[in-house]
Amino acid sequence: MPLISVCLSPQLAALQDFKGKVAVVVDILRATTTIITALEYGVKSILPVDSVEQCRDFQEKGYIGAAERGGKIVEGFKLGNSPFDYLNPCYAGKKIVFTTTNGTKTIYSIKGAQRIVFGAFVNLQAIADFLDIQGKDVVIVCAGWEDEVNLEDTMFAGALIDKLESSFNIEGDPGMLAHILFLQSEGNLGVSLEGSSHLQRLMKLELHKDIDFCLTLDKFTMIPELIHGEIIACTHDENLDL
Amino acid sequence: MPLISVCLSPQLAALQDFKGKVAVVVDILRATTTIITALEYGVKSILPVDSVEQCRDFQEKGYIGAAERGGKIVEGFKLGNSPFDYLNPCYAGKKIVFTTTNGTKTIYSIKGAQRIVFGAFVNLQAIADFLDIQGKDVVIVCAGWEDEVNLEDTMFAGALIDKLESSFNIEGDPGMLAHILFLQSEGNLGVSLEGSSHLQRLMKLELHKDIDFCLTLDKFTMIPELIHGEIIACTHDENLDL
Repeated sequence: MPLISVCLSPQLAALQDFKGKVAVVVDILRATTTIITALEYGVKSILPVDSVEQCRDFQEKGYIGAAERGGKIVEGFKLGNSPFDYLNPCYAGKKIVFTTTNGTKTIYSIKGAQRIVFGAFVNLQAIADFLDIQGKDVVIVCAGWEDEVNLEDTMFAGALIDKLESSFNIEGDPGMLAHILFLQSEGNLGVSLEGSSHLQRLMKLELHKDIDFCLTLDKFTMIPELIHGEIIACTHDENLDL
Repeated sequence: MPLISVCLSPQLAALQDFKGKVAVVVDILRATTTIITALEYGVKSILPVDSVEQCRDFQEKGYIGAAERGGKIVEGFKLGNSPFDYLNPCYAGKKIVFTTTNGTKTIYSIKGAQRIVFGAFVNLQAIADFLDIQGKDVVIVCAGWEDEVNLEDTMFAGALIDKLESSFNIEGDPGMLAHILFLQSEGNLGVSLEGSSHLQRLMKLELHKDIDFCLTLDKFTMIPELIHGEIIACTHDENLDL
């Protein structure tokens, strides 16, 4: 059986051997939820960049800039890290350049994976089905908050493991920890994550609507994938060799 | 109320601000359990060093050398990382130099803490009482396994938080994660930790006796403390200013 493991923070990614594996990037609040939503609503591609400066540079080259720091839209940008920003049909077919506090950095911490896809509660079942069909070893890479382990990404890792436990072996203690966290939630994500420091941070910014969106299961079947540095809708071609 | 937080791996220690805080080093299987045991049985001091070479050097200077790698005693040393090695009264009053796979490294990852003490299930209540009297902010620093987060150290962090939750506020998601892990164990540590990869590693080395010892609650009241680079029995003097 293939193996499934969890990297709890980008700070721990150097300990992982990604070679030949499928990496699932997770940043529940809110980057991966937003990426999935944007592609589902027709955005052509999303270019993840580290800095606000790079974001500005690409904006000048014709991309639509999206920049978030500390939960808020950076001044001078129309788009931030809320999934609601992307429900507007005017972005369909457009290329976006995107920088967030934790999400983009996580992508760059993954070295040598065969495929890099993006998961969140909004595409949980779709991503589980995709990984099951692939049948390759999987590492779930949590974005955390400023390199620290967080509850909501770990909870998602546990939920994904729970979907796959009959066809994958859990490798390593972080995977077991995530699975235990999910099992004790008994499916009530909102209550279990009440203590999450990032959720409280977003509540203070009055982003309750975003939180509800991000904790909703299986809204979409979209699976974003990183191809040549840009995030696009995955072709679901299991034989795609990168 | 003072704060209590958890650093899940030495790899994450750089994210912590230890200044003015009490750090509790944890390496349940087996370094901190063994350190507590050795001091309880009369060892005068334990000098933690990074490498086997340093351990040999200090042995030549009159220290008794203790060296473990990958769960086994390193060739040329009489003592390793089993608490049972230290039950021999012949080590009472002696100075030991000690290197282990994960434990010693963790100590050096802590920068600027006011006090550094050592916890394990064998001194859980004693360490909880000590921290309660101190009334200072606490960071529990888990040794993990080769920089990866592990179940048994996280479980201990959760158990210690559970003892202190009426007099400390939990700060940050790792502390909440550890507490949830402990709560779901319902006090049955052995069963909850069956999946731990390091526990399984020690089982393969036929160290069941060590595992049982390390998971026993409140065998001792000894609290080891790092003073000027050596681990000695803590004076319990709450006014001790370092």
